[in-house]
Amino acid sequence: MVTRLSKFFVRTLREDPAEAEVQSHKLLVRAGYIRRQAAGVFAWLPLGLRVKAKIERIIRDEMAAAGAQEVHFPALMPRDPYQATGRWDEYGDLLFRLHDRKGADYLLAPTHEEAFTLLVKDLYSSYKDLPLTIYQIQDKYRDEARPRAGLLRGREFTMKDAYSFDYTDEGLDASYFAQRDAYERIFARLGLEYVIVKADAGAMGGSRSEEFLHPTAVGEDTFVRSAGGYAANVEAFTTVVPSPLPFDEAPAPVVFDSPNTPTIETLVAHCNAVLDGEYTAADTLKNVVLALTHLDGTRELVVVGIPGDRDVDDKRAEVAFAPAEVEAATPEDFAKHPLLTKGYIGPWSATGPVLGEESATGIRYFLDPRVVDGTRWITGANIDQKHVHSLVAGRDFVGDGFVEVATVRDGDPAPDGSGPVHLARGMEIGHVFQLGRKYAEALGLKVLDENGKLVTVTMGSYGIGVTRILAIIAELNNDERGLVWPASVAPFDVHVVATGKDAAAFELAEQLSAQLEAAGFDVLYDDRPKVSPGVKFGDAELIGVPRVLVAGRGAASGEVELWNRRTGERETLRAAEAVARLIAER
Amino acid sequence: MVTRLSKFFVRTLREDPAEAEVQSHKLLVRAGYIRRQAAGVFAWLPLGLRVKAKIERIIRDEMAAAGAQEVHFPALMPRDPYQATGRWDEYGDLLFRLHDRKGADYLLAPTHEEAFTLLVKDLYSSYKDLPLTIYQIQDKYRDEARPRAGLLRGREFTMKDAYSFDYTDEGLDASYFAQRDAYERIFARLGLEYVIVKADAGAMGGSRSEEFLHPTAVGEDTFVRSAGGYAANVEAFTTVVPSPLPFDEAPAPVVFDSPNTPTIETLVAHCNAVLDGEYTAADTLKNVVLALTHLDGTRELVVVGIPGDRDVDDKRAEVAFAPAEVEAATPEDFAKHPLLTKGYIGPWSATGPVLGEESATGIRYFLDPRVVDGTRWITGANIDQKHVHSLVAGRDFVGDGFVEVATVRDGDPAPDGSGPVHLARGMEIGHVFQLGRKYAEALGLKVLDENGKLVTVTMGSYGIGVTRILAIIAELNNDERGLVWPASVAPFDVHVVATGKDAAAFELAEQLSAQLEAAGFDVLYDDRPKVSPGVKFGDAELIGVPRVLVAGRGAASGEVELWNRRTGERETLRAAEAVARLIAER
Repeated sequence: MVTRLSKFFVRTLREDPAEAEVQSHKLLVRAGYIRRQAAGVFAWLPLGLRVKAKIERIIRDEMAAAGAQEVHFPALMPRDPYQATGRWDEYGDLLFRLHDRKGADYLLAPTHEEAFTLLVKDLYSSYKDLPLTIYQIQDKYRDEARPRAGLLRGREFTMKDAYSFDYTDEGLDASYFAQRDAYERIFARLGLEYVIVKADAGAMGGSRSEEFLHPTAVGEDTFVRSAGGYAANVEAFTTVVPSPLPFDEAPAPVVFDSPNTPTIETLVAHCNAVLDGEYTAADTLKNVVLALTHLDGTRELVVVGIPGDRDVDDKRAEVAFAPAEVEAATPEDFAKHPLLTKGYIGPWSATGPVLGEESATGIRYFLDPRVVDGTRWITGANIDQKHVHSLVAGRDFVGDGFVEVATVRDGDPAPDGSGPVHLARGMEIGHVFQLGRKYAEALGLKVLDENGKLVTVTMGSYGIGVTRILAIIAELNNDERGLVWPASVAPFDVHVVATGKDAAAFELAEQLSAQLEAAGFDVLYDDRPKVSPGVKFGDAELIGVPRVLVAGRGAASGEVELWNRRTGERETLRAAEAVARLIAER
Repeated sequence: MVTRLSKFFVRTLREDPAEAEVQSHKLLVRAGYIRRQAAGVFAWLPLGLRVKAKIERIIRDEMAAAGAQEVHFPALMPRDPYQATGRWDEYGDLLFRLHDRKGADYLLAPTHEEAFTLLVKDLYSSYKDLPLTIYQIQDKYRDEARPRAGLLRGREFTMKDAYSFDYTDEGLDASYFAQRDAYERIFARLGLEYVIVKADAGAMGGSRSEEFLHPTAVGEDTFVRSAGGYAANVEAFTTVVPSPLPFDEAPAPVVFDSPNTPTIETLVAHCNAVLDGEYTAADTLKNVVLALTHLDGTRELVVVGIPGDRDVDDKRAEVAFAPAEVEAATPEDFAKHPLLTKGYIGPWSATGPVLGEESATGIRYFLDPRVVDGTRWITGANIDQKHVHSLVAGRDFVGDGFVEVATVRDGDPAPDGSGPVHLARGMEIGHVFQLGRKYAEALGLKVLDENGKLVTVTMGSYGIGVTRILAIIAELNNDERGLVWPASVAPFDVHVVATGKDAAAFELAEQLSAQLEAAGFDVLYDDRPKVSPGVKFGDAELIGVPRVLVAGRGAASGEVELWNRRTGERETLRAAEAVARLIAER
């Protein structure tokens, strides 16, 4: 059916919506694809729904090709399964919780690991039933603290979430790669360039975890990659640990006065002034106090020692201490711990307690993996206005363990030996990871194996944010005049425009629309009778259908203009030739 | 793609699920179409999702044919628009309410009149934009007090809801009938017999309102119809009002002793014993005390006077007094109103106050429409153990108005003069109604008309419960062995079964599946290698695909059995003949 713009439920706007921060949000609203209903909650107009349906179709195709079967879970889920895995609490404020008229607790599901696990437990009991991969395309909910950026991070959003079930680790690997391959095909069809980066498996407790990132300077995620093929997001990057150094000959530590040097910069300047040798921030050990809030609500201070030329990376710290929440220690925290001499904290002090021995302060002390035995440091002496130098790791102090919280930098060596890494930014477009047996164990999903023994099932989880992907495609495909859809997801294949007052233009446009429709194209026909060519062209460019066919002045002599929305190219052609061209390039 | 049962995510159950009350619920769970997640909340397995998708496809086809355009609203909606129309409160306990991390109020939408109205207000401003009909197929929420009967009345359910927008009443009529016609086509394609009955427009404030009911003895709704073509649900049935009778000559009322006659039965027996003449319940006026709970929470007692041979019909009373809630008066209510002499209440008393005069009791008194001026009644005297006879309506008492709360009976005259009505039962499968200007007024949806004047838009609302329809089809199409789907919504077109240990059977079944697939059929192929024919046949009958093709013993000589699931007919045919037969009957 040809869609006539005169009857089509769409209105374009000249002004950007006030609440929109990013280009995709502005354009999708202005061009009449979506409308805001509440913060992070949108209604879909016919144009938007068409693009969404095309993305979903591609995903369904590739899921079927990968042997995944579609199911559908409710958004409204009871508390019990989420309680069993601890996520009812872990999700904190991100979870929309509610209760029914009888007072029973429910949630709006942010993801469905529990429900899928229980469904498979309900239906299956034998290794012969496996492998199984099931998925859904479904609306999910997260009560984001700052829902912004339109569909990029909504509070109601559509996800494709798939879950695989195997009874061996090899089986899980096979299921994982089947989904991973499907993702590669999906993003290729969507025209989305991607990098597959190692991601942190973290709180999910699994082993293998990778993100598909679209590399773009405006991305919210930072990742690293080496020329040799290593790629990881910063949370998953692991530091190459240097070899320990001998320290038998090392001189003893020396405490020295260092007035007014609470920062690394002032300390390094002071050292270069009063000590022998030349020092940089890398010679100092910076001790940062962090406050962890554990799931049970208790607050714990910890100190992390990292080379002075690096900072604590919030995201890496979050992963390192998960599921606890991490923040910088507050003045109140310091006030409660007089042993923490702000600006002069060290792992060791000639007069004070040794951090890392709980008996002394009760404060755990963690080290950056680079602080191996034998490395020598200038660091705080735990005495106001004093530092210490020649302090040797492994001799003068030890930590309670190593943590990966320091920033990653351009030039850091990749952990796989493939050379130095470079930092880049990207947007997450998909995530595949191996959950392992965490959910199956918590919910009792076991099957009988070949030997009649009950074994716990191992699972994978595979997500693509459908509405997020749509926004990303819009974010990447636009210009100052509007949206520029890739053909695979465009709401229409061809936008036919009749201009002027000449009946011949409308007649020709009508004929061409019918011909294209008969040839299998989705046609949007701008048949509005009293609208100026300028407005029509502006709308066509804003809406962003890849091909625009204009019947105007030349219509009487059978000529049309064929536009390429992306390149801006415009050709005058015989009408039949234009149709043939469109068919040929399909 | 041929779906292989060996890999298909389905398991059939031998036992009915404990919580299931109705046949559709039992069978949809047993045959592996759905699984319960919470009361009235279900997950969809691949089989169920296929049937649901087929129903949705038919609805989308017919919506497009009727010129309706698809949009999609969030389930999570802010409170404001529902507050503006009063429905935030009116819905009471039926509404799932929740708040976000900032404390803002949200609801899970039970229907979207407000949102559609506001969206049209946002986009449109001129009569030239109209008419418009937009719809969605979307998951809705109602916190039913007794979610039961599986999908027939779920708490999360899928609806097609359409809304029309016009600026004239004639336009609304046209939009209304376009949807009504589409519904007729949809139900015809779904194989669902229907009666279109007048429904109460009631609380929605509109004018025309009709329900599509499927007539069935097990239906939850009662409706009436006449041989002459009248049809209405009992809530919408209107009583034919008799002409007033002259009462100039009528004798004066007489109070008489009537000990131990608090019921109509005992009263009639007593009258026949002590009074002249022969009496029936129809000669008595029964006065029923009802308690209304108004939206603001106040409780009001009212008395309704109806002929003694009828009862108060709860549903008719609900409609008559909407939006107040109605229940029978409690002993506490009577205790608070000593003037109400239980069992002997009348409209009038020689000694007590006249009901209907607020000054006397403060209790409003309503009458059945049959209690016209001049009718004579035996009724309570408002004195314990006493009744009154020869009490004349319009002379001895008047009411505060007429209400349609009395039961409708077989033989009552249809209001359109088309003869006596008969009661029947049905299930609601669709509802079309004219909202009129209620929502547009509450939310300020106006457009400029031809004369440049702002006029309020008039709306219609048109709903089909997708998941409810699916359950109704299952409810109507089953036998003792399982489901029997109509071809238009069956999860597969053909169920191919290979039986026995003979490789030839599996090879032939495989070939036939591929052939049918190539011919455009959705094929489910039972390729399970070590499952007995009995189990396979049992599963095929339970799952209910309309055609079953069995390759068994005869396979080696090229013979198959073609089953008709509905009739039970089984034919032995050459394989090629069976395929040709299936293609021909399509």
